[in-house]
Amino acid sequence: MEAIEGIKNLSYALDTFYFLITGALVMWMAAGFAMLEAGLVRSKNTAEILTKNIVLFAIAGIMYMVVGYDIMYGTVSGSGYFPAIDLSFMFGGDHDVDTVLGQSYKDMYDGGTYYSKMSDFFFQMVFVATAMSIVSGAVAERMKLWAFMVFAVVMTSFIYPVQGFWNWGGGFLKEMGFSDFAGSGTVHLCGAAAALAGVLLLGARKGKYGPNGEVRAIPGANLPMATLGTFILWLGWFGFNGGSELVLSNVGEANAVAAVFVNTNMAAAGGVIAGISAARLMFGKADLTMALNGALAGLVAITAGPLDPTPLGATVIGAIGGLLVVFAITILDRKLKIDDPVGAISVHGVVGIWGLMIVPYYTEAATLGNQAIGMAVIFGWTFGASLVTWGIIKMVMGIRVSEEEEYEGVDIGECGLEAYPEFTNK
Amino acid sequence: MEAIEGIKNLSYALDTFYFLITGALVMWMAAGFAMLEAGLVRSKNTAEILTKNIVLFAIAGIMYMVVGYDIMYGTVSGSGYFPAIDLSFMFGGDHDVDTVLGQSYKDMYDGGTYYSKMSDFFFQMVFVATAMSIVSGAVAERMKLWAFMVFAVVMTSFIYPVQGFWNWGGGFLKEMGFSDFAGSGTVHLCGAAAALAGVLLLGARKGKYGPNGEVRAIPGANLPMATLGTFILWLGWFGFNGGSELVLSNVGEANAVAAVFVNTNMAAAGGVIAGISAARLMFGKADLTMALNGALAGLVAITAGPLDPTPLGATVIGAIGGLLVVFAITILDRKLKIDDPVGAISVHGVVGIWGLMIVPYYTEAATLGNQAIGMAVIFGWTFGASLVTWGIIKMVMGIRVSEEEEYEGVDIGECGLEAYPEFTNK
Amino acid sequence: MEAIEGIKNLSYALDTFYFLITGALVMWMAAGFAMLEAGLVRSKNTAEILTKNIVLFAIAGIMYMVVGYDIMYGTVSGSGYFPAIDLSFMFGGDHDVDTVLGQSYKDMYDGGTYYSKMSDFFFQMVFVATAMSIVSGAVAERMKLWAFMVFAVVMTSFIYPVQGFWNWGGGFLKEMGFSDFAGSGTVHLCGAAAALAGVLLLGARKGKYGPNGEVRAIPGANLPMATLGTFILWLGWFGFNGGSELVLSNVGEANAVAAVFVNTNMAAAGGVIAGISAARLMFGKADLTMALNGALAGLVAITAGPLDPTPLGATVIGAIGGLLVVFAITILDRKLKIDDPVGAISVHGVVGIWGLMIVPYYTEAATLGNQAIGMAVIFGWTFGASLVTWGIIKMVMGIRVSEEEEYEGVDIGECGLEAYPEFTNK
Repeated sequence: MEAIEGIKNLSYALDTFYFLITGALVMWMAAGFAMLEAGLVRSKNTAEILTKNIVLFAIAGIMYMVVGYDIMYGTVSGSGYFPAIDLSFMFGGDHDVDTVLGQSYKDMYDGGTYYSKMSDFFFQMVFVATAMSIVSGAVAERMKLWAFMVFAVVMTSFIYPVQGFWNWGGGFLKEMGFSDFAGSGTVHLCGAAAALAGVLLLGARKGKYGPNGEVRAIPGANLPMATLGTFILWLGWFGFNGGSELVLSNVGEANAVAAVFVNTNMAAAGGVIAGISAARLMFGKADLTMALNGALAGLVAITAGPLDPTPLGATVIGAIGGLLVVFAITILDRKLKIDDPVGAISVHGVVGIWGLMIVPYYTEAATLGNQAIGMAVIFGWTFGASLVTWGIIKMVMGIRVSEEEEYEGVDIGECGLEAYPEFTNK
Repeated sequence: MEAIEGIKNLSYALDTFYFLITGALVMWMAAGFAMLEAGLVRSKNTAEILTKNIVLFAIAGIMYMVVGYDIMYGTVSGSGYFPAIDLSFMFGGDHDVDTVLGQSYKDMYDGGTYYSKMSDFFFQMVFVATAMSIVSGAVAERMKLWAFMVFAVVMTSFIYPVQGFWNWGGGFLKEMGFSDFAGSGTVHLCGAAAALAGVLLLGARKGKYGPNGEVRAIPGANLPMATLGTFILWLGWFGFNGGSELVLSNVGEANAVAAVFVNTNMAAAGGVIAGISAARLMFGKADLTMALNGALAGLVAITAGPLDPTPLGATVIGAIGGLLVVFAITILDRKLKIDDPVGAISVHGVVGIWGLMIVPYYTEAATLGNQAIGMAVIFGWTFGASLVTWGIIKMVMGIRVSEEEEYEGVDIGECGLEAYPEFTNK
Repeated sequence: MEAIEGIKNLSYALDTFYFLITGALVMWMAAGFAMLEAGLVRSKNTAEILTKNIVLFAIAGIMYMVVGYDIMYGTVSGSGYFPAIDLSFMFGGDHDVDTVLGQSYKDMYDGGTYYSKMSDFFFQMVFVATAMSIVSGAVAERMKLWAFMVFAVVMTSFIYPVQGFWNWGGGFLKEMGFSDFAGSGTVHLCGAAAALAGVLLLGARKGKYGPNGEVRAIPGANLPMATLGTFILWLGWFGFNGGSELVLSNVGEANAVAAVFVNTNMAAAGGVIAGISAARLMFGKADLTMALNGALAGLVAITAGPLDPTPLGATVIGAIGGLLVVFAITILDRKLKIDDPVGAISVHGVVGIWGLMIVPYYTEAATLGNQAIGMAVIFGWTFGASLVTWGIIKMVMGIRVSEEEEYEGVDIGECGLEAYPEFTNK
């Protein structure tokens, strides 16, 4: 009897620790996005993108705490479309946020395993930030800082949590059989859809497209920084996918988590090889940025279903993601003239869809139809809600910096300082 | 019976692993300080500050091993002011450092939980390095490299461990009821006090204050690096605060560790929002460096008591820290003319005091009086002992580089190389 | 009975988690090597070295999956020289990679502890990448990108796994009594031997050695990046050595892992102090790069035997490594005129040998003779096989870029872009 009590305590502690460490790795992805985006913009717009990245992470945490988590994982309403939102904990006098974010047990399966609800909140919170980080890169070098912040508030408190509830919170997508293990759709496609809406309202950077339809490349100022960001994201993704198994403390779950780690790595590896090879074939050069985008594409691709494929299968899923991203970036940039400085819409959106649609190949319970519905719902909701939100912000305060400010660089205009005051030769 | 043995083994292993992983995260903070400081100085002084940061981490580990750990956690002397220092393990022939840093069990509570003493040493050792890292930023761009190293030896072997013993080692502050969970006082205020003593003896950088009292801003050369450093510190702080619970292996402790992770994150988030908002209101621009300092201030503020507040409360504690740091930096820089290139005294000192004084609001056992005494003792001891130490070093070898060397940059003078030989346009 | 089952489940889960987290730390070393090497080359060759680093990590994972792991840990053949290679899982239709990389238990000791085989594969896979990362630095700034990639394929699928089998896979070195805990020989000397073979066939960079025998220093373009890389490697090494204990889940093993963490840190600290002091004495300046190389040398030195020394002993082992590396770099660079831009051969090769040869001092079961044989076998095999491989690649496609490309920088030539398009003043 005493032994069983000891084992329950240890299971609870180990699963909680597993959540906290994988959550910390996902938090680390915020640094990855910051470095990736800072490396891929021009030096005159670097401090501003860094500011956006650290502030959005702060906003995400606070807004998800005060309302988002409750929307996503609160009491499920009768309809299955929206949960009953319960903000009472915000207004009670006696620290009763603990009632919601508290330390009650959470029954996982068979009534046998538990973990700290606070660790669950921590893990879910860093996911919201990831979705929002995707947006900042796509709108870089021309969006007003404070307009972006307002959008971040709406995105992390409402837009993301609502569709998150539909899937992971137990809403109609989950009930229908939609399968998205760690969020190729719920996180990455969601972030990309919000980004696309913003980019469409915002327009391209000055000078990106010439008067006669020519497309000008605008190289990033600091590729070691971008490479570091990619490695950070790769590392953080072990937490992102690995933690999404949610439980670790028995043989079956431990095997599952280990398989997820391996498959996550293999998909990234496949993406790198495909990306660099495609770049070599298409452009004649081993374009580093395509190796980086390939890695990220591989990671996004495997995120919807990192548990069931074999390692070889995961490599192939990632490699196809890496191919797709090179084509998608080229088509968005040259044909559709959607100006996305870091390729975020291609990496997280196009490849996110690929990740969702390949799930049924390895996962029996998933069907192509359900995956397509889930994909359409996530994209439709996020794109629509974002378009409305961006539109209102545009009307009220404007979303684009002035032409002078864009020419001079948003660092001076928005932040009042330069990222590299001693370095630039321009 | 056999089961109980197995459970004890697993508890011991899990708590040891928890210590090692959180300790590794704290070690990672050394990289964070190095990047933060390297980003906030001018390019001509960058290699030198990097050298100081990596060497101080090495010195901290070695000095804490040979004497500091023994002072801080050795046998408590009768007086409760200093423990009996026992250096015998250094001189015995037969590897008997193991007697001190060995693998004996350490009884934690109820005689039921243990962890490796070596993992405890590892965790404590990286804390000393953190305190010393705080100093390097404040004295940047003008202090002699080897003078700094000598101070690092004294600080990590003696000044820090003595006041650490008074609190965590079981000395009179602990007995009195002083409450400082992970070291807003014992680590951060301590580091800031040592830095302040150094800065006062050292004086401001050439050109910082004009002949007619004007204050010149000296911008940092590489803000992406500084931002990376801040993210690293944020991540590492989950280990710093999260590991300071010391035990993880049952439901209550796991819940506590999870709460500490969440509160640490929320305080940093609150600090970012407060810092960037204050900068916007005061200077009219979203100054990135104030977002970074706000994050660090939030983290320092919550460090004295990250367990008891609600997440909302932690956000507020961090936000007030973020406000305080913007005012403190402005006052030190413009009114008091204390030249602290990275704002370390404000972040770790002023906000460290705020962190200590807010503890009684959430923690019943703490009182304002005891917190004030603890604060005064830590500051008084560290400032006094540091002033004497810096003073002796100044007399014996000097602490400030020559005017020519300062103008040319300490990288060439002290390290014989440049941090960015191909980049600078000055 | 039920309790024993629970304990077995928890042990399995904890040991698997320990493997995955330490493996993730080793994966992080790939970022460390990338940053270190990117910081130590000139800006015109930076994007290319970043490309090599991320692509080699992808190649290492894929090749080790499809053949390397099987060579290294497959069924041992009768001879004890080569295992029977079994590639059947590659060609079976039914995802049966799981048969090899699957989720079967692996009996560890006493039949009592198990962990996921997939986690073992994950941990071993990142080691291969480490060995290969060593090579990229030594051949930097002049080797063709695709020639390097071809070598990476051979190295990670064949050269490394064969000698890895001889030691850790249960081959003749293991049977003989060769002792190399985490791979001063099997990983670091192996990488250095492959690098040396490449450098000898490749020759020095243009301009490195003048017509009258003068030696020109070629400073690295970004020392903060190199310092960051060193800190990343230091952190990752806790996984590299700490995970190599392979099991954590009881008191004895937890103590061992903790001792390994502490000794790893102390050796690095000793290396820093020795490196910076030697630089000060020899060159008159506190050369930052020697502090970095000292840290890495300390880490390489302790890797062969991080368990048995006392912390003080580990400090000394690391310090001697730090001294050795300063001399070795100077001798290779100035006397032997072997052009190794980042000092990889000295750090991983010369100091790797030192690490192997000091093992018998602390580890009773090891003998100087066995260590010397193991060292000679690893070096001989890897150097010979690499020389043949490099030679064939040289004949077939060439290994060195054209003189024009080398002058212009390999970034433009190989990758079609610049790492810092806005910064360089040359």
